[in-house]
Amino acid sequence: MIIDPLKNDLDVSVLKKQFIEIRTYTETICKPLEIEDYVAQPVVDVSPPKWHLAHTTWFFEQFILSAFDPGYTVFHPRYNYIFNSYYNTVGERVLRHNRGNLSRPTVNDIYAYRSHVNKAMISFLNKDLPATGEWKEILELGLQHEQQHQELLWTDIKYILGMNPLYPKYSDDLPWIEDTIDPALQEWISIKKGNYFIGFEGEGFCFDNELQRHEVHVEDYEISNQLVTNEEYLAFIEDGGYSDFNLWLDEGWAWVKDKNIDSPFYWEKINGEWYSYSLRGLSPIIMNEAVKHISFYEANAFAQWKGHRLPSEQEWEIANQHFNWGQRWEITQSPYVPYPGFKTKEGAIGEYNGKFMVNQMTFRGASVVSSPGHSRASYRNFFHPHLQWQFTGIRLTK
Amino acid sequence: MIIDPLKNDLDVSVLKKQFIEIRTYTETICKPLEIEDYVAQPVVDVSPPKWHLAHTTWFFEQFILSAFDPGYTVFHPRYNYIFNSYYNTVGERVLRHNRGNLSRPTVNDIYAYRSHVNKAMISFLNKDLPATGEWKEILELGLQHEQQHQELLWTDIKYILGMNPLYPKYSDDLPWIEDTIDPALQEWISIKKGNYFIGFEGEGFCFDNELQRHEVHVEDYEISNQLVTNEEYLAFIEDGGYSDFNLWLDEGWAWVKDKNIDSPFYWEKINGEWYSYSLRGLSPIIMNEAVKHISFYEANAFAQWKGHRLPSEQEWEIANQHFNWGQRWEITQSPYVPYPGFKTKEGAIGEYNGKFMVNQMTFRGASVVSSPGHSRASYRNFFHPHLQWQFTGIRLTK
Amino acid sequence: MIIDPLKNDLDVSVLKKQFIEIRTYTETICKPLEIEDYVAQPVVDVSPPKWHLAHTTWFFEQFILSAFDPGYTVFHPRYNYIFNSYYNTVGERVLRHNRGNLSRPTVNDIYAYRSHVNKAMISFLNKDLPATGEWKEILELGLQHEQQHQELLWTDIKYILGMNPLYPKYSDDLPWIEDTIDPALQEWISIKKGNYFIGFEGEGFCFDNELQRHEVHVEDYEISNQLVTNEEYLAFIEDGGYSDFNLWLDEGWAWVKDKNIDSPFYWEKINGEWYSYSLRGLSPIIMNEAVKHISFYEANAFAQWKGHRLPSEQEWEIANQHFNWGQRWEITQSPYVPYPGFKTKEGAIGEYNGKFMVNQMTFRGASVVSSPGHSRASYRNFFHPHLQWQFTGIRLTK
Amino acid sequence: MIIDPLKNDLDVSVLKKQFIEIRTYTETICKPLEIEDYVAQPVVDVSPPKWHLAHTTWFFEQFILSAFDPGYTVFHPRYNYIFNSYYNTVGERVLRHNRGNLSRPTVNDIYAYRSHVNKAMISFLNKDLPATGEWKEILELGLQHEQQHQELLWTDIKYILGMNPLYPKYSDDLPWIEDTIDPALQEWISIKKGNYFIGFEGEGFCFDNELQRHEVHVEDYEISNQLVTNEEYLAFIEDGGYSDFNLWLDEGWAWVKDKNIDSPFYWEKINGEWYSYSLRGLSPIIMNEAVKHISFYEANAFAQWKGHRLPSEQEWEIANQHFNWGQRWEITQSPYVPYPGFKTKEGAIGEYNGKFMVNQMTFRGASVVSSPGHSRASYRNFFHPHLQWQFTGIRLTK
Repeated sequence: MIIDPLKNDLDVSVLKKQFIEIRTYTETICKPLEIEDYVAQPVVDVSPPKWHLAHTTWFFEQFILSAFDPGYTVFHPRYNYIFNSYYNTVGERVLRHNRGNLSRPTVNDIYAYRSHVNKAMISFLNKDLPATGEWKEILELGLQHEQQHQELLWTDIKYILGMNPLYPKYSDDLPWIEDTIDPALQEWISIKKGNYFIGFEGEGFCFDNELQRHEVHVEDYEISNQLVTNEEYLAFIEDGGYSDFNLWLDEGWAWVKDKNIDSPFYWEKINGEWYSYSLRGLSPIIMNEAVKHISFYEANAFAQWKGHRLPSEQEWEIANQHFNWGQRWEITQSPYVPYPGFKTKEGAIGEYNGKFMVNQMTFRGASVVSSPGHSRASYRNFFHPHLQWQFTGIRLTK
Repeated sequence: MIIDPLKNDLDVSVLKKQFIEIRTYTETICKPLEIEDYVAQPVVDVSPPKWHLAHTTWFFEQFILSAFDPGYTVFHPRYNYIFNSYYNTVGERVLRHNRGNLSRPTVNDIYAYRSHVNKAMISFLNKDLPATGEWKEILELGLQHEQQHQELLWTDIKYILGMNPLYPKYSDDLPWIEDTIDPALQEWISIKKGNYFIGFEGEGFCFDNELQRHEVHVEDYEISNQLVTNEEYLAFIEDGGYSDFNLWLDEGWAWVKDKNIDSPFYWEKINGEWYSYSLRGLSPIIMNEAVKHISFYEANAFAQWKGHRLPSEQEWEIANQHFNWGQRWEITQSPYVPYPGFKTKEGAIGEYNGKFMVNQMTFRGASVVSSPGHSRASYRNFFHPHLQWQFTGIRLTK
Repeated sequence: MIIDPLKNDLDVSVLKKQFIEIRTYTETICKPLEIEDYVAQPVVDVSPPKWHLAHTTWFFEQFILSAFDPGYTVFHPRYNYIFNSYYNTVGERVLRHNRGNLSRPTVNDIYAYRSHVNKAMISFLNKDLPATGEWKEILELGLQHEQQHQELLWTDIKYILGMNPLYPKYSDDLPWIEDTIDPALQEWISIKKGNYFIGFEGEGFCFDNELQRHEVHVEDYEISNQLVTNEEYLAFIEDGGYSDFNLWLDEGWAWVKDKNIDSPFYWEKINGEWYSYSLRGLSPIIMNEAVKHISFYEANAFAQWKGHRLPSEQEWEIANQHFNWGQRWEITQSPYVPYPGFKTKEGAIGEYNGKFMVNQMTFRGASVVSSPGHSRASYRNFFHPHLQWQFTGIRLTK
Repeated sequence: MIIDPLKNDLDVSVLKKQFIEIRTYTETICKPLEIEDYVAQPVVDVSPPKWHLAHTTWFFEQFILSAFDPGYTVFHPRYNYIFNSYYNTVGERVLRHNRGNLSRPTVNDIYAYRSHVNKAMISFLNKDLPATGEWKEILELGLQHEQQHQELLWTDIKYILGMNPLYPKYSDDLPWIEDTIDPALQEWISIKKGNYFIGFEGEGFCFDNELQRHEVHVEDYEISNQLVTNEEYLAFIEDGGYSDFNLWLDEGWAWVKDKNIDSPFYWEKINGEWYSYSLRGLSPIIMNEAVKHISFYEANAFAQWKGHRLPSEQEWEIANQHFNWGQRWEITQSPYVPYPGFKTKEGAIGEYNGKFMVNQMTFRGASVVSSPGHSRASYRNFFHPHLQWQFTGIRLTK
């Protein structure tokens, strides 16, 4: 994470406003939930909503209030242990797979924790603070961090409800619209061979993994102006895509066999017809929407079947201004690795991104459940190649 | 389960009174819980309290109302799938380890389910029913079944709260008293070699696994009039009992090593002193209470260390009128097997006991969390030899 | 293991003769093997033949020569570590599942080891030894131990060759004959209710687990004079026995489902016909032979299907003189537990039997691959309830 | 794999000579082995030597003789099933982890198989063959394939002997020399920022994964002219490198903790001094040799500790003519992914490289156990990031 000089002029009152907005939106996401929905952790990759609510709060308590506000008293001495996630520096922590086993603190306790920290943060921000400095960088990181967990709240809530045999509806009222795609408008965007710059530039926030901005060389390529639709993906399924090992990477094929994968996550065949679970409940597949909830393995096999391929993250970023994005995290063929000159920060903050740079793939863009204003062309998201629970999609390249 | 002629004269009004009392007590147990406590399943052997509440209700809906009351409408068509436990006959069911992943139905839904079934049961019992018959047998079984789950509610709630790093208290107000034990009063009861009868006899209810009453031969033996205390067990720990393989069965030793077992469940050494978690919270070990939360493996190793042994279930039952019992499920050296002439019943009810008769040990007596009036001298409880979460204890034999 | 006074008069020259015969027979079993067959360990329960050859030798080196012959030098200082099996007392050892990973010592090395120890033993036995004493007891135990491993050599060699896609033949020349069974001669032997004595009595050797001889009470029962045939077992298969959960213990059913069990071990359906692998190679099932290679779970399900049951080990022993046995280890419904008054010996020898007395079932009789003269009516063999690789069979009771 | 026009002029007599040399060298590697050493598979990544001998032979039988020689009769109909490795196209195959469970075919059978195929190949090559064509490409691929397995023979033999508690020596006579490194001669080679071409060019053989040759852009960097020594690596160990999570990738740290890793593979601390196993047996660490048998995780942590980093594979290839290489497979920070324009071939041959392009890291150069003439600057080897059993080493970059 780098704060350029201009950004350090960011007015404290602007930061305060953002703090309030972002903290409020997290709770808005959870409003339709029943208390019980806050507790479950059906798989290790999904965290209980109450854990997300508390962990994002702990970040401000631990890295801002305890660090920079001498008068601050922690809400509860054991919360550091319970709501720390992967920060080895900060001490021992509850093992990830145990998050769903903790009925306490209760949801009410956690909302009280949020309220306590929010008040302390506002009163901290009302103080006469140095105009620049580490506290500002960390505050901004904390807000970005909370936005990342907002997206995880959406995907984890969907998982918790979607795996339930009752298919409970979250709400009919969702703050996004799924675009429809007209295949007649599909075009290939041509990019010329040459050197380009990628990585973050300009003012504003970025994560450390988007830096340094650097030069890359690419060959001629074409990239689709549209995402792959459910209809196109269904053709892959019906052509036996999940049973032809030739289309799959070796570890992808092992995953398909071992887990009996035969369709995107949340798809279900009922009396010969394909349905999928959305936050509005179970309903038939909508053919002209972008396919979602597929793993890198599936995206790669689909591209093979089409005779095309996935873009590299460099290709994606170079071409991104020529197409619309933001509906799906778009799966690239690029493993998640450091950019030239990448440096982690000292201390716990340095554990944020760099240490995950192995065995994961880069995803670009943003999805319908990404928080408004959170993403940008240089943003790099990353997931293991078998994971399906994010709102992921496919943009083909050739 | 056998209903003898006298019992079939049992007045319906008596049954109705029992039904109301038992159903009410289940909910009383749950009263101090937070909603969140109803949801968690920290290990596969522990079920979420809301599952217990619903499963016991499902039993009456499935086996009484749907079977004998033609006018009854099921509360929800999917509940049969969700709250069935191990009854293969009744169709597919949620896998046991998935119980804690289901946030829905909510706790409120489940209380509504209980209320719906309770009302239907009362109105069923107000009908002009045949004085004898299968419905009565099953109703009584359903009540016994609910009492068994009452005990599991106690043990599972303790597990859920006790594994929480906050050690939350259930309540200070518990409906039982732990007896203290005066070692000076320990005596050996001598039983003479000979043939004895064991197994259920007399009027009233029993499970199928307590029958047939049959003759057994035992050699001379002596059995203690008292349970082993925490103080005695601590001596075993301090003498290195958990590190001397000679004391352990081979699979017990593998369990100790693999799970790093070094004390009874819920014990924790803090600054050199032993504490244990109880439903009142964490507190120092009380030396003159009966040791609890130990597995068969531990009980057997302790007995070896003492130079004694555990009783067989026959020895326990023959001697039971000579000592007080009811504080702990008492661990025997007897694997859980059918008695001579054992017969399972036709249909789903037949799956109740018989199919678990392998790889488990028999436990005798009752514990402080057993429901009042639920146990008897011929009662046979059974658990796998490594499980610790029940209120188990040790009575030595030689 | 108990040595009665008469047996202690056993002439040393008799023991020497037995020692030579038994040691020689072990090597005779291995004669048709290729070097490669000595090395593999396809599952943890099967040991490489070279391990059996060395481990039985180590027993004499460790417990006789090193203990009683001051002039003896061990063959190799690391062999104690490599060929110790489960004797915790004797120090650390190669983990069981690693036996098949050790290419060295070579088969030749191990035969040299055997020869070294054999010579040392003979010269030990030629000394002027005390007429009675511990050395004699242990020597006899060592010989019995080697006979047990002779049977394991047969079953493990069969496993190693039988799981090979080439179905290699061991030899056409086997030192036993499989009896044929005429179903027309099947009869039920009636035993009267009453007290009987079981357990070892008389002169000669027995294991500690056969003692004390003690009184038991049984009810009236009938036991078949014949074993169940392949034809009868095939009827169970064809009637859907492996798909009807009602016939199975709960853990047996989980085993069937998890491992996709649908027939006895070594059975294979080829073009609609059932074949089985024997040490002579793959051939069609012989209908009038006793079924073999079934687990306790299968035997129990078969008995349920027939409307009968398995005998207890007490029932088996009481009735044994009324039928022929020795073709199959006969599966009982009795878990393997200590007899009244059971005592283990001091030291490593005490680890022989007692520590396995949990989670295993008792098997009675002997099988066609048991060593001549090794078994007797009171002999108790024991295996986990899912294991199939022994020459096990079914004798029904009702 | 691409065959350029010149190469297709390759004289058949040259190919025949190479065939004989390479096939002979494989057997030379195995000469010091005992029969037993050919059989074991101590971990899934290590194959039994006899499997390597047969699998490389099967390649010629399957893809040359069966495909191009109409008169050829397969040696054994089941060998295709047994010695196929990962070629899904060619049908079902023995699961990888079962290779070590197959005692048959014997080592002699496999040498007979080699001899049979060698003769058939020579007589095939003596025929009047078309001067160009697929058969030539596949033959060359088969030879390269066998050379890859020659290296695996060295590493797998080392594993099999090195994990044995007897530390058996392979031979004192090894066909390579370990260079010593003088730290005083360490220098940093500076490479200027700019565009470079990487990937295979020129005549001769290359694998498909080395193509297309393509342009890449790199920033200024410096790369060491020397490999890291045992002495330098020991300083990392002694400075607590294996206990400081800050140096490790998150999944690397989990690996260290889970497997208790505290040093390179084959290192062992005996009485306070570090030893390592080599094919000559166990001996003290030689300080001025290049460290070997380390995983990507370890190399990366070491580089972090030094304040440097690993090179990318592009950086390595660009700079490779400025330093000596060939002692160690040099670990890069580059995941193994396809080059721009990468195409797999049709059919089974297409399964050779491409399908492994996920979750593995690229290794560059060659090692002392690589076959002579097998590697080149564009050669790309790949292993999972936790694997240690190859002769891997570290070259630092900054």
